[in-house]
Amino acid sequence: MQTTVRKQMNGLDTTKMFETLDAIQKQPALARFQFRNSNRWIDGGENRSRIQGFYGAGREDDSRSSPFEFTNGEPPVLLGNNEGANPVEFLLHALAGCVTTTTVLHAAARGIRIHSISTELEGDIDLRGLLGLDESVSAGYEEIRMTMHISADCSDEELDNLMSFAPAHSPVCSTVCRPVPVKVDWIKG
Amino acid sequence: MQTTVRKQMNGLDTTKMFETLDAIQKQPALARFQFRNSNRWIDGGENRSRIQGFYGAGREDDSRSSPFEFTNGEPPVLLGNNEGANPVEFLLHALAGCVTTTTVLHAAARGIRIHSISTELEGDIDLRGLLGLDESVSAGYEEIRMTMHISADCSDEELDNLMSFAPAHSPVCSTVCRPVPVKVDWIKG
Repeated sequence: MQTTVRKQMNGLDTTKMFETLDAIQKQPALARFQFRNSNRWIDGGENRSRIQGFYGAGREDDSRSSPFEFTNGEPPVLLGNNEGANPVEFLLHALAGCVTTTTVLHAAARGIRIHSISTELEGDIDLRGLLGLDESVSAGYEEIRMTMHISADCSDEELDNLMSFAPAHSPVCSTVCRPVPVKVDWIKG
Repeated sequence: MQTTVRKQMNGLDTTKMFETLDAIQKQPALARFQFRNSNRWIDGGENRSRIQGFYGAGREDDSRSSPFEFTNGEPPVLLGNNEGANPVEFLLHALAGCVTTTTVLHAAARGIRIHSISTELEGDIDLRGLLGLDESVSAGYEEIRMTMHISADCSDEELDNLMSFAPAHSPVCSTVCRPVPVKVDWIKG
């Protein structure tokens, strides 16, 4: 009987990872993913998302038996009751997670063992943009800064190479750094 | 004894809202906010954020007695165990929430009562960008589509005016639609 030795690195099944890379190189359409969210307004600054299905690797995913649910809220200074973190804070959660996972993934591909990553993020916003008080002020973040503390089995040069590569290949970081079209339709009823 | 009648619209204290607008117009520095997140890698595609304090309206906020915690994960097809929604899905949660809250806020400012908003989002990603298999493919979302079902006490024209205004004034939508610099520093240790 022949068995395949499954290799692990940084908590990832690298055997499966390299199989996936091979499959996508042969059939690039497998790399096409569509992610989704359904959101419902509750009241004021509170609303709730349900996230479950997505399309990827050539089929509808059915690995989640129930949806993830997340609540956006606002603090009192922004007219809410801290029903949840607010949307711009959730964006920092998405960004931190994506850069971290992209780093861990590409470290595994390079054979670099990661011991720990912890990251502090801060982002500046001028709310005159949101409020429409000054049309020269963008509503979005002006800048986001991330400081990552990384412990890994590699040289300083290997870490610098990895970290010059990873953020630029993070889907959320690329979505923030580059302009991505958001098409909004509304239906009255 | 004189009492102030607090006005409410769409679950928002509009008396406080207009007071805030007046205060910011007199002292624009009050509109400067800084949001933050601390994230820690757990293993593989799993990591966890703690979100609590922020700076805004001229001071450190202390309204949250404990942090919000959120876990990023990945589905099996992306080498995880569905430990949480994944970062690009959290970005859709942030986007939905921000456009919804911006819509509700500006509706309140215009005296438009909102009965319900429910929103479906989908975003397309080609994972060859993340994987570094084709440097001509962006790692980020190619496009995000939002369909908002809105019930409100207003004419079709008033709704069209509101919805032409709101997404462009949403901080998360503006962060996605426009290029926002993300500065990443790393410290080895």
